[in-house]
Amino acid sequence: MELVSSTRSFDGLQQEYRHRSAVLNCTMQFSIFLPQGTDSEEGHRYPVLYWLSGLTCTDANFSQKAGAQRMAAELGIVLVIPDTSPRGEDVADDPSYDLGQGAGFYVNATQEPWKQHYRMYDYIAAELPALIEGHFPVSKKRAISGHSMGGHGALVIGLRNPERYTSVSAFSPICNPIACPWGEKAFGAYLGADTTGWEGYDASVLVGRATTHLPILVSQGDEDQFLEQQLRPEALQMAAEACSYPLRLEHHAGYDHSYFFIASFIEEHLRFHADYLLSNDKIPA
Amino acid sequence: MELVSSTRSFDGLQQEYRHRSAVLNCTMQFSIFLPQGTDSEEGHRYPVLYWLSGLTCTDANFSQKAGAQRMAAELGIVLVIPDTSPRGEDVADDPSYDLGQGAGFYVNATQEPWKQHYRMYDYIAAELPALIEGHFPVSKKRAISGHSMGGHGALVIGLRNPERYTSVSAFSPICNPIACPWGEKAFGAYLGADTTGWEGYDASVLVGRATTHLPILVSQGDEDQFLEQQLRPEALQMAAEACSYPLRLEHHAGYDHSYFFIASFIEEHLRFHADYLLSNDKIPA
Repeated sequence: MELVSSTRSFDGLQQEYRHRSAVLNCTMQFSIFLPQGTDSEEGHRYPVLYWLSGLTCTDANFSQKAGAQRMAAELGIVLVIPDTSPRGEDVADDPSYDLGQGAGFYVNATQEPWKQHYRMYDYIAAELPALIEGHFPVSKKRAISGHSMGGHGALVIGLRNPERYTSVSAFSPICNPIACPWGEKAFGAYLGADTTGWEGYDASVLVGRATTHLPILVSQGDEDQFLEQQLRPEALQMAAEACSYPLRLEHHAGYDHSYFFIASFIEEHLRFHADYLLSNDKIPA
Repeated sequence: MELVSSTRSFDGLQQEYRHRSAVLNCTMQFSIFLPQGTDSEEGHRYPVLYWLSGLTCTDANFSQKAGAQRMAAELGIVLVIPDTSPRGEDVADDPSYDLGQGAGFYVNATQEPWKQHYRMYDYIAAELPALIEGHFPVSKKRAISGHSMGGHGALVIGLRNPERYTSVSAFSPICNPIACPWGEKAFGAYLGADTTGWEGYDASVLVGRATTHLPILVSQGDEDQFLEQQLRPEALQMAAEACSYPLRLEHHAGYDHSYFFIASFIEEHLRFHADYLLSNDKIPA
């Protein structure tokens, strides 16, 4: 693992690392925020919030625009911010912004030409946490959050691995990708025309199958330009109500899909996760 | 004045406007943050912090990366964030990053080909405040701050117009531009080879000439890659000590020149200005 940059932030360190991913079969970059003390307090292990970004993003967007470091420093939470897809000249791509590099959709692709690299589900759920836990002073207390495509990823990975996370949250997530244009396009390409395989990556389906109920917080702006056609939070809400899954879905008047929305409510999300990450209740798998 | 974008942020509005500048003889864009209440509280007028950005920046950098809206919303302060130079195809430019568009240095140029447009001093000190005060529910309580080249601009404009500002602050400012490579190059181009005209744009000179002492806060990271060659805070400090100007210069261990430094201390700067902006002591000119 190679250190790319290291910058002081809120008395901690905002860093970028490059590493070879066996799962994705390419070199990947991620960002990490380490609160003050992670370099000195012998033995103390910090909980981690994984943040999954949306379409076209890299590890830089959340790092630079969300203002999350302030509360992460105050609460003593490590932030891990991966890229949104495999990258590189030999990695399949598409000219459109919503497929290929920058648009991995947090699935394990089964179709050509994607399946050689596009395995973001396994990368986020298993390979990256193992790497982080082997190199940094972190505990196995993990929470997961994200925005838009990354909100979809956080919900799906949390719902499918409840033993590995304390809590899940999302800003403006794609809640029902099997029934929206972004999801149909991406899943059709990565997973193929047979839609039965799609359901394992759809939060609104997975909620109904969940036997363990994690705490979930979803924040949605009502001036979001993608709300009706792409995000469909009402599908998630109906599915959660049908099975009494305790979903906390908050609508915020006047907010759009941008990082200004995330910055406005990231403190609430970090405090939500802190209630579980910092408790002594449960050690995840 | 044309509204370019409007986004909800911390229950206020983050907006961009385009307008024709008579001083700069071109179309300019600025950003403004209006805390909650500015659109409704009849009669209440909010104080304004002007933020001047550094080399290569536009109005977007501070708006997206500093995380200033949170405290501005809490304190009830309007943020105005101008661009860093005149812009446009007919505006003189230079291929280097530290001269021409994106590098106005907050001076009134006297030399060809710059003098037709490069009058950022007059734009920031007079034209823009008049525009803001004519269109938004703001008072004449003004503070000024900035980063790097913009920190230089804030110090110079504050020191030369103490009757118009309550307080001045700067992150990593170019403190002594007449004696550093960035300043020598820019002042040589904009102001000409005769260096006597340069002193009116040098904070370390102006401090010694000041008859009114404004509160000044300067924050400087000690891992700043430009510290020794370009920024020279020790020149400002020596000049302030020589005339008992009450300069508060803070060195921060481990911090560099980036927006991660600004984000870490913007709350302190906003609280510093709030002490003066929100007091009833003095109505600036």
